[in-house]
Amino acid sequence: MHPETQTVVLASRETVPFDYLVVATGAGPRLPKVPGLDVDGIFTLRNVSDALRIKRFIQDRRAKRAVAVGAGYISLEMCEAFRTLGLETTVLESEARPVMRLPEEFSAKIVEELQANGVTFMPRVNLEGFDRSPSGIVVRTGNGPLEADLVLIAVGVAPEVKLAAEAGIALGRTGAIAVNDHQQTNLPFVYAAGDCCESYHRVSRKPAYIPLGDTANKQGRIAGANIGGQDVTFPGIVGSQCFKVFGLEVASTGLTEDEARQLALTPVSATIQGVSRARSYPSTKRLWLKLVADTGTRRLLGAQAVGAEGVVSRINILAGALAGGLSLEEIAYLDLAYAPPFSGSWDPVHIAAQELLK
Amino acid sequence: MHPETQTVVLASRETVPFDYLVVATGAGPRLPKVPGLDVDGIFTLRNVSDALRIKRFIQDRRAKRAVAVGAGYISLEMCEAFRTLGLETTVLESEARPVMRLPEEFSAKIVEELQANGVTFMPRVNLEGFDRSPSGIVVRTGNGPLEADLVLIAVGVAPEVKLAAEAGIALGRTGAIAVNDHQQTNLPFVYAAGDCCESYHRVSRKPAYIPLGDTANKQGRIAGANIGGQDVTFPGIVGSQCFKVFGLEVASTGLTEDEARQLALTPVSATIQGVSRARSYPSTKRLWLKLVADTGTRRLLGAQAVGAEGVVSRINILAGALAGGLSLEEIAYLDLAYAPPFSGSWDPVHIAAQELLK
Repeated sequence: MHPETQTVVLASRETVPFDYLVVATGAGPRLPKVPGLDVDGIFTLRNVSDALRIKRFIQDRRAKRAVAVGAGYISLEMCEAFRTLGLETTVLESEARPVMRLPEEFSAKIVEELQANGVTFMPRVNLEGFDRSPSGIVVRTGNGPLEADLVLIAVGVAPEVKLAAEAGIALGRTGAIAVNDHQQTNLPFVYAAGDCCESYHRVSRKPAYIPLGDTANKQGRIAGANIGGQDVTFPGIVGSQCFKVFGLEVASTGLTEDEARQLALTPVSATIQGVSRARSYPSTKRLWLKLVADTGTRRLLGAQAVGAEGVVSRINILAGALAGGLSLEEIAYLDLAYAPPFSGSWDPVHIAAQELLK
Repeated sequence: MHPETQTVVLASRETVPFDYLVVATGAGPRLPKVPGLDVDGIFTLRNVSDALRIKRFIQDRRAKRAVAVGAGYISLEMCEAFRTLGLETTVLESEARPVMRLPEEFSAKIVEELQANGVTFMPRVNLEGFDRSPSGIVVRTGNGPLEADLVLIAVGVAPEVKLAAEAGIALGRTGAIAVNDHQQTNLPFVYAAGDCCESYHRVSRKPAYIPLGDTANKQGRIAGANIGGQDVTFPGIVGSQCFKVFGLEVASTGLTEDEARQLALTPVSATIQGVSRARSYPSTKRLWLKLVADTGTRRLLGAQAVGAEGVVSRINILAGALAGGLSLEEIAYLDLAYAPPFSGSWDPVHIAAQELLK
């Protein structure tokens, strides 16, 4: 990329001129600094062709034993896929529990769900490296070696910003490309969108790096509309995310209690156990919801939830509440559509807000 | 009720004094003005004991043929119950379609769902009365007579306000008891809560009569808290409601296009067909979502939706958006939790808002 001459040079050495440039280089998987990453059967997952390569490997090699390194949502979603394909599956995590952002008791629900579905979860594992063995891969750890036919490494992602940084495009404090609410970089004719760039976080009121497919889509649309002559602003994110692991929904929006503290806020929180439908409704399921609010302003800061159903729908209500700046008092009496197949007359959202107001 | 002496007189003639009075007389079913309402086997449904009476009647009389008069949500929910118990079920509606508040195409989905589940739906039926016959009940209509073993009359409800009105408690223009945001009536020591009173509608910015169990619960809590010495205000409703009829979820929030026009607003609307989960996800289902906005201010006024799943959860997001006063632009880019089991990267909520912004 050569902003000064408004050209890019392709790998084929061809030079292409531009009026506007959109940097959409995405993010790549981070790799642990251990030897043996080139051993056959060790994979990362970035795109559909990676997924197909993994699937083909499992079929061709009749893989029976999968090890996933890392316990974030990519790893956990893949564990479900491995189990569906009949593989013996083990998750290694350097920290004490999966999805460290979540409240400890919610991570515990995830561990239960993994175990109930035949996945072995190994916390506090120090990964030392990989070796080829006659029967597959040896995963060396501080707790001793493990045998595997296939290893997935999913310990997070980093924005692909090398080309952009070399071209003089400014990065933000998160390490991703800094953009304004039109998705413009510091160079007005260069836009960035997707997993390579930051987003404005409406709750922390700071740029954040939370690379997700839906945000990437929105940023791309904003960049395109502005290049096309419209004047469209991206309102930013509130940090909503979710995933499914076997029969468990896991979702969050806004800040966690720890994140709020790191921003020098004084958070207060309440965690409730609720039900997805009315208690009288035959198939109702338990769910757990934690709300985090600012002590001084009583402003909602974030929410995390886990349960068999109705989790994402509650978090999305709260995502809208964060975007609308609703107070805890308003959330406690929010007019949600009520019928017994869908909730109790007091929804878990109301109950959690009232609990926190105490 | 004797506010002037701060006493109430019970049916037993006992006089009970009060410092504060809460009027919670609820609502009763409205009845059509036709002869024969006292024929055995004609029911209305107000509470659990009514439901048990109906169930017992079906069992004791081995009822085989049910006719429901009216096609609102109570009637439709009961049709599902009748079919579950194996009854031949017919719905008679004086209007052209069920749930007249809804967009015409959504009523059509409900008719399809009724028919797919063996319910006969008869629109534009003029009810003339009921007669006893040797084999049960004859339902006389402008289209000719129908035979039934059991008739449910569900043509709406009216607030029970006779005692309150006689006691000098002011009614609002809707005919229900007028209350302020503390649930106080015109008499400061008399409160009202539940289906006998109005609610402030945050979208129309007028008192409305939309009697629902969740609103009643909220009003009761507000009345109790204020009587108990707290100073708690009810923010009002946005008109959210939902029901399930067989495999169909039906939900709405805010105003319909017609209601907005009746309030002298100039609404604009867009209806989209979306999917409940990502298109790539195996069990995704179709849903239909209509958004209504104000032409001048681009403010969201309401939403209606119907579909096999994910309908109530979308309406609840929009209920929060109405409470937070989000603009269509903000809704179009709202940061919802995304993963393929729960939505596409563009949720139907986003797609509908973008369609309406065109």
